[in-house]
Amino acid sequence: MAAALCRGKHRLKPFSLFAFHLPRRHFTGSFDYDLVVIGGGSGGLACSKEAAQLGQNVAVLDYVEPSVRGTKWGIGGTCVNVGCIPKKLMHQAAQLGTALKTDSKKYGWRIAGPVSHDWATMAGSVQNYVKSLNWGHRVQLQDKKVNYLNMKGSLVDRHTIRGLNARGKEATVTARNIVIATGGRPKYPTHVPGAREYGITSDDLFWLKESPGKTLVVGASYVALECAGFLTGVGLDATVMVRSIALRGFDQQMARLVTDHMEAHGTRFSWSCVPKKVEKLPSGLLQVTWTDTQSQQEHQDTFSSVLWAVGRAPESGTLNLQHVGVQLNTNTGKIIVADDERTTVPNIYAIGDIAQGRPELTPTAIKAGRLLAQRLAGHSNQLMNYDNVPTTVFTPLEYGCVGLSEEEAERRYGSDDIEVYHAFYKPLEFTVAERDASQCYIKVVCEREEPQRVLGLHFTGPNAGEVTQGFALGFQLGFTYPQLRDTVGIHPTCAEELTKLHISKRSGLDATVTGC
Amino acid sequence: MAAALCRGKHRLKPFSLFAFHLPRRHFTGSFDYDLVVIGGGSGGLACSKEAAQLGQNVAVLDYVEPSVRGTKWGIGGTCVNVGCIPKKLMHQAAQLGTALKTDSKKYGWRIAGPVSHDWATMAGSVQNYVKSLNWGHRVQLQDKKVNYLNMKGSLVDRHTIRGLNARGKEATVTARNIVIATGGRPKYPTHVPGAREYGITSDDLFWLKESPGKTLVVGASYVALECAGFLTGVGLDATVMVRSIALRGFDQQMARLVTDHMEAHGTRFSWSCVPKKVEKLPSGLLQVTWTDTQSQQEHQDTFSSVLWAVGRAPESGTLNLQHVGVQLNTNTGKIIVADDERTTVPNIYAIGDIAQGRPELTPTAIKAGRLLAQRLAGHSNQLMNYDNVPTTVFTPLEYGCVGLSEEEAERRYGSDDIEVYHAFYKPLEFTVAERDASQCYIKVVCEREEPQRVLGLHFTGPNAGEVTQGFALGFQLGFTYPQLRDTVGIHPTCAEELTKLHISKRSGLDATVTGC
Repeated sequence: MAAALCRGKHRLKPFSLFAFHLPRRHFTGSFDYDLVVIGGGSGGLACSKEAAQLGQNVAVLDYVEPSVRGTKWGIGGTCVNVGCIPKKLMHQAAQLGTALKTDSKKYGWRIAGPVSHDWATMAGSVQNYVKSLNWGHRVQLQDKKVNYLNMKGSLVDRHTIRGLNARGKEATVTARNIVIATGGRPKYPTHVPGAREYGITSDDLFWLKESPGKTLVVGASYVALECAGFLTGVGLDATVMVRSIALRGFDQQMARLVTDHMEAHGTRFSWSCVPKKVEKLPSGLLQVTWTDTQSQQEHQDTFSSVLWAVGRAPESGTLNLQHVGVQLNTNTGKIIVADDERTTVPNIYAIGDIAQGRPELTPTAIKAGRLLAQRLAGHSNQLMNYDNVPTTVFTPLEYGCVGLSEEEAERRYGSDDIEVYHAFYKPLEFTVAERDASQCYIKVVCEREEPQRVLGLHFTGPNAGEVTQGFALGFQLGFTYPQLRDTVGIHPTCAEELTKLHISKRSGLDATVTGC
Repeated sequence: MAAALCRGKHRLKPFSLFAFHLPRRHFTGSFDYDLVVIGGGSGGLACSKEAAQLGQNVAVLDYVEPSVRGTKWGIGGTCVNVGCIPKKLMHQAAQLGTALKTDSKKYGWRIAGPVSHDWATMAGSVQNYVKSLNWGHRVQLQDKKVNYLNMKGSLVDRHTIRGLNARGKEATVTARNIVIATGGRPKYPTHVPGAREYGITSDDLFWLKESPGKTLVVGASYVALECAGFLTGVGLDATVMVRSIALRGFDQQMARLVTDHMEAHGTRFSWSCVPKKVEKLPSGLLQVTWTDTQSQQEHQDTFSSVLWAVGRAPESGTLNLQHVGVQLNTNTGKIIVADDERTTVPNIYAIGDIAQGRPELTPTAIKAGRLLAQRLAGHSNQLMNYDNVPTTVFTPLEYGCVGLSEEEAERRYGSDDIEVYHAFYKPLEFTVAERDASQCYIKVVCEREEPQRVLGLHFTGPNAGEVTQGFALGFQLGFTYPQLRDTVGIHPTCAEELTKLHISKRSGLDATVTGC
């Protein structure tokens, strides 16, 4: 099916254990491979392809353990299969809903009949696209002469990896260097009866063939909010259950704008609530019981689906890491790494979500993987710079940020020594559409002292990812607030509002942009 | 009507000639005003408001001469009334058409009946919004204590301005400093019979109450292409007649992508053609005769509307400038200015489109006006920096750029001394929508020698304005290609492709991003 999508000139070689034992190009001293990467997600694939490109003899092991619910997918890891890609596409579906049902009429479009959404069509399109990416990854590995092994890898010793395939066949291979990039998987709560039995996670949601229907999303991470956001956007009844705060680790003023926007657009929130149990009713519906931690009262409601988005756990358990001396952080279960991605075993490295202290983001994993490959191949000694990594939340109002949150800037510099410039602006496209822009907001946090170096930049509004990316370049260069102000705007855009920021929070003046 | 839109707490003072003779706050030596600004467009308003804010006694004269066709509008100048604002809103209408008619189905939306577009609804919404901006500008002037005079201004001597209102009443006022910011207006061709009689310009298009129908757009400036683009996008038959090249002054590879995209999406092009005459048929249709300059053959077709977008002329003719010694560029009719916006008369300044050599862009006029006001008020001596001004064309594929075109970089540095990194990429939202991405392209032009300073950046694709803005900040800081590459991407966005550019044109390698 995936193959059909690529209308391919490419034909993939059949998977063969034989290939596993006969590295193609050259034997590298006493090892089968220069490099074996365990985990074919964003980081692992980038690392393995880059190493092969630089002449290294490389194999990558990838194996997807089905989710609790039994969902499976192909190579490419979380981002491609059950993360960024399907998420952004379903976000796009939600955006189109607003365009269709609200905006288009104001802009003169006339739709004769009613509008409805069909989950199966959307999911089918998204799943087909993801399968084409799986196929593309396999083609790329083949083109770049990386040996792809659809096996679950674990360590035998510091140079030996054991692979196990779905049919229970085993193979062993040796490598001078090993990179672990197995990422993480969604967690289930441990003390909620019925959670595992009846619930799903983001590992399942994107692969559902039928609509999840009325959905309870438990958790308030960006994963939780994004899922609830697009479920609402495609017309479903979605409730987010939040124990304490939303978007922990993000700027909390911005987090509130995100959840305010969601609430204003139909997503329900159960604040300060914790789930107690999930039961399946004879009707097939799921009855959820939860406790309001403020009032200590119990509540019940029924849902068609319960989606757990209560965090992710690293896939470190079955790698036999401790046996070979790779140390884990005992709290998180993640692998302890040095600045050069090295674990406590000198020839074993870890990148991406499995590595302690790293942002759980595709672009950082890719860049870290590529730089690591370059260093391992002796082509560079550049380290990955994990500072000022930009990111965006798609909820469906988008929130883009880079650098410090206001709270963190206050903590590090003191509130007297930072200046925060801000604006509530109205995207031009919202005006005619008569959309509420209450949550469209920009905030730039600077040092108060000249030259007012910018510490953090935060933007909610349409296309926040596209807006934020270029400003992230500025963080590489240590830009200042006057330099931001000296930048000429592009009119009419939302991004230009950043160059016009002039009201400081300290001034107490109204920060509403008049649009004139 | 405009007032109704603002649901206003504001009530405007009635216009009064009396106010004209009695500056409100203080007499400034022997002059009525510290500053009189002629022209209430982007630059003039920004300058007058900033000056008033800094304590200057300010008046602004604005008077809209109706278009040839008789179209009139309120304060705010070209951008607000007949430029950026209505253009971007109609561009948005076109974008929504694609969302509605093409994308939404693939993303699962089902529309029961047929879809059509109603010009009158769109135009009405856009016009109402523009009127609310006119009102907003008047309120702002009042709030900031700028005397607004709905009069056509001309110079009597270097400190005296004569104002003439619509009823023929005259008034005279004196000022220490004068800023001319009267902008420009669309030109008609001089040797095409019927052009003026039957044609319209961008001064009329946005104010049409009924659809222009099948339209011939003559010209290939960004104004011409943008208008033809959104006309096509809202379902009209639109043809662009191009004498030589499109988007003169812009990077020509990018210009071709823009016109290729338009052609692929239904806009017709008559390349190398020049109009000869326009006649009105008894049916009311306009019959246009033109010459194909390649074959020298004549052609004819009928249109409902003919839109001239053959350039703009400065509004300098009726200002009596030469009488007081303000020199014009004899080719362009624009006012010759120094780096500090000063004309050849020391106390008279010119900003915006009327000033020779300035970009015809709202944000530069605003920034220049504001900085000039600060200098006139003695609050700063900062000059406007006109280098590396970013801009975006909305056609409806958007094209954003900042810095040098590839041709200009070659001219200045030599083709051996520049390196061009480029990529053809596919926006994620295009995949499921099955949209063609052939024209989605990125190009970064750098010095070839290390540290590879970036000279120009070019991007076609969705939201190009939003994407480009942040990178324009980088130009303030003189960023290099390695710094661009070290920036972490935001996934999944189009903008992140800029951080991943690695194929040089010189290498001859395929620049298609695989999306894996």
